[in-house]
Amino acid sequence: MPGVDPAELTAQLVRCASVTPANEGALEILNDLLSEAGFDCAWADRGGIRNLFARWGNKGNTRSFGFNGHTDVVPIGNPVDWSMPPFGAEIKDGIMFGRGTTDMKSGVAAFAAAAVDFVKDTPPDGSIILTITGDEEGDALDGTTALLEYMENNGERMDVCLVGEPTCPETMGEMMKIGRRGSMNARVTVTGVQGHSAYPHRANNPLNAMVRLMDRLASHELDQGTDHFDASTLAIVTVDTGNPATNVIPASCTAGLNIRFNDLHSGASLTTWLEQQNALIRDEFGVEIEMSVKISGESFITPPGPLSDMIGKAVEAETGVKPVLSTSGGTSDARFVKHHCPVVEFGLVGQSMHKVDEHVKVDHIHQLKAIYGRILRDYFA
Amino acid sequence: MPGVDPAELTAQLVRCASVTPANEGALEILNDLLSEAGFDCAWADRGGIRNLFARWGNKGNTRSFGFNGHTDVVPIGNPVDWSMPPFGAEIKDGIMFGRGTTDMKSGVAAFAAAAVDFVKDTPPDGSIILTITGDEEGDALDGTTALLEYMENNGERMDVCLVGEPTCPETMGEMMKIGRRGSMNARVTVTGVQGHSAYPHRANNPLNAMVRLMDRLASHELDQGTDHFDASTLAIVTVDTGNPATNVIPASCTAGLNIRFNDLHSGASLTTWLEQQNALIRDEFGVEIEMSVKISGESFITPPGPLSDMIGKAVEAETGVKPVLSTSGGTSDARFVKHHCPVVEFGLVGQSMHKVDEHVKVDHIHQLKAIYGRILRDYFA
Ligand SMILES: [Zn+2]
Ligand SMILES: [Zn+2]
Repeated sequence: MPGVDPAELTAQLVRCASVTPANEGALEILNDLLSEAGFDCAWADRGGIRNLFARWGNKGNTRSFGFNGHTDVVPIGNPVDWSMPPFGAEIKDGIMFGRGTTDMKSGVAAFAAAAVDFVKDTPPDGSIILTITGDEEGDALDGTTALLEYMENNGERMDVCLVGEPTCPETMGEMMKIGRRGSMNARVTVTGVQGHSAYPHRANNPLNAMVRLMDRLASHELDQGTDHFDASTLAIVTVDTGNPATNVIPASCTAGLNIRFNDLHSGASLTTWLEQQNALIRDEFGVEIEMSVKISGESFITPPGPLSDMIGKAVEAETGVKPVLSTSGGTSDARFVKHHCPVVEFGLVGQSMHKVDEHVKVDHIHQLKAIYGRILRDYFA
Repeated sequence: MPGVDPAELTAQLVRCASVTPANEGALEILNDLLSEAGFDCAWADRGGIRNLFARWGNKGNTRSFGFNGHTDVVPIGNPVDWSMPPFGAEIKDGIMFGRGTTDMKSGVAAFAAAAVDFVKDTPPDGSIILTITGDEEGDALDGTTALLEYMENNGERMDVCLVGEPTCPETMGEMMKIGRRGSMNARVTVTGVQGHSAYPHRANNPLNAMVRLMDRLASHELDQGTDHFDASTLAIVTVDTGNPATNVIPASCTAGLNIRFNDLHSGASLTTWLEQQNALIRDEFGVEIEMSVKISGESFITPPGPLSDMIGKAVEAETGVKPVLSTSGGTSDARFVKHHCPVVEFGLVGQSMHKVDEHVKVDHIHQLKAIYGRILRDYFA
């Protein structure tokens, strides 16, 4: 009983050039497959984005296991940099190449294939829900949030959810993610008084204030990490002035910051801290400081428990590797799902994601399907 | 005996649109005037720049008084910003408008007119040398240095020299310059290791090193000034990164510095100091730092003495104002002349120089000619 071939399904999806916000038929392939296997499918499109909701089993079932993933991909960059066709899904020496082969058409293919086989072989006493979006790599404004809104509006429910993003740094099976640090960006503009560089006392150089402020922020230890989180980090990503004249003190300058924060902080608490630091500099230097803040996501965690235990055991059984529980890395749609139910992420080795010549070992796709299938069997056992 | 009208001569020069390196006939007007008055004139052109050398009296004379000035002007910017024609020399309510009316066609006209009248009225026992360049506002590579080279090659000599640049901040007669601070620019590039802003420990953010370095440099007191000089100053004029990606720690960033320094420093000593500061940061942060330095001019001074006394008395006699001896301001060609002989600068109120609607009081041009004439009489008395 080989069932659905997840590598063949991955290849079909990779051949759809679904660079956000394009879909190019990717979700229709999944819709066809799942509908045929007896899933109730519905489109939860929003803002021009295609989103697929699929449920096997009745809406009112007591147990409901969810998978979440995305079929959109990041741009390929310059095609000439690729040594294989970026949307070809060509296989060479057991490795499939193409945009989305790791992030995360293979993950979607693996859980869709596992779910289809599972309901066919051993129809469970419960529901399996797949939420698959076309907007994760972009602004993610009309993706998984639209699917969750659809579920809310239609009385759909997952008890737990597994996001199929790549989570393993180097070796298949070594890491799952039980949460993520939060992320926020701040843009700081310091305005002083322009003047001639020969007479700095007649001007008020905003750069003096800016470098002091940035040095303080970058030198500050936000924390030393918590039980499940690394230490929070602050990175100055840019400081810019654009003053071409060596004899002119500029009127203003800007800086950009990115903060990744754990459960000791929130976007609001860090905004308050930044505002306090700005106020100190404002007083010390007599400058004006404006700041705009964008909070991409708060930190969140699904504390170690039954869900992570079950996934860990399944991974170990299929790979021989016991996954560590991590909260590292950037944001993912788990930040939305966590408002709905406990969520854990497990998937492939992510090394080549977003890069030129993105690729996946075909064996790993089959292994991932086996892991997802085992999780379903264990969950509904 | 009204002699040469310096305001009319200024107007003629202003009507030549001699934006560096263009000459547009300006120096030919002076050549004609001076030749006719018995000056030996010669062209000391270099690198496409027109430069006029003029001497009254014999080459071997024991006493030789020099004037130095320039006929090139800075660009006018956007012509529509001007309320009067920028090369029109139009007079309204006793004020002449146009590029170069203060900086410094009026100064050149005033000393040329004073010299012509003086040699005609009371031929001195000595020489008067005028060096007038078309390249002061630009790179000044082929201007006064070319004139001094010409003099060197031809056995020409000035005992003292008066540069006719605007020197008065607000009131006619209030300031002369007996020296200038030095000026140097440094461009600093800090290179670290690029990375993802979520993993700053895997990168080495060059901005952390840059803001620490810049804060240290800007906070450092170079000195508290000396007998004739203001305190040295350091201005950060720009810090730039140009990183548009909030999730990327950049590989490198650059900064520009301008240092104005007094006689406690030299371009070389400050370069050494900057290199030491760079080395400390290099060690602390493990970054690479490259620096390029351009020394525009060393500090120099003609200590208060006979020349400044004589000029001060002439200014006070004509204006009723006793000029202070200053070393403030940017660079001027006095930084070249000082290698040849003692040099002092005195001229008009410079408020509108380099600005839109540059202008001069016509009365001031006449007053300046009177001052220069009195200096010549006193010198050769
Ligand atoms: Zn992804
Ligand atoms: Zn000038």
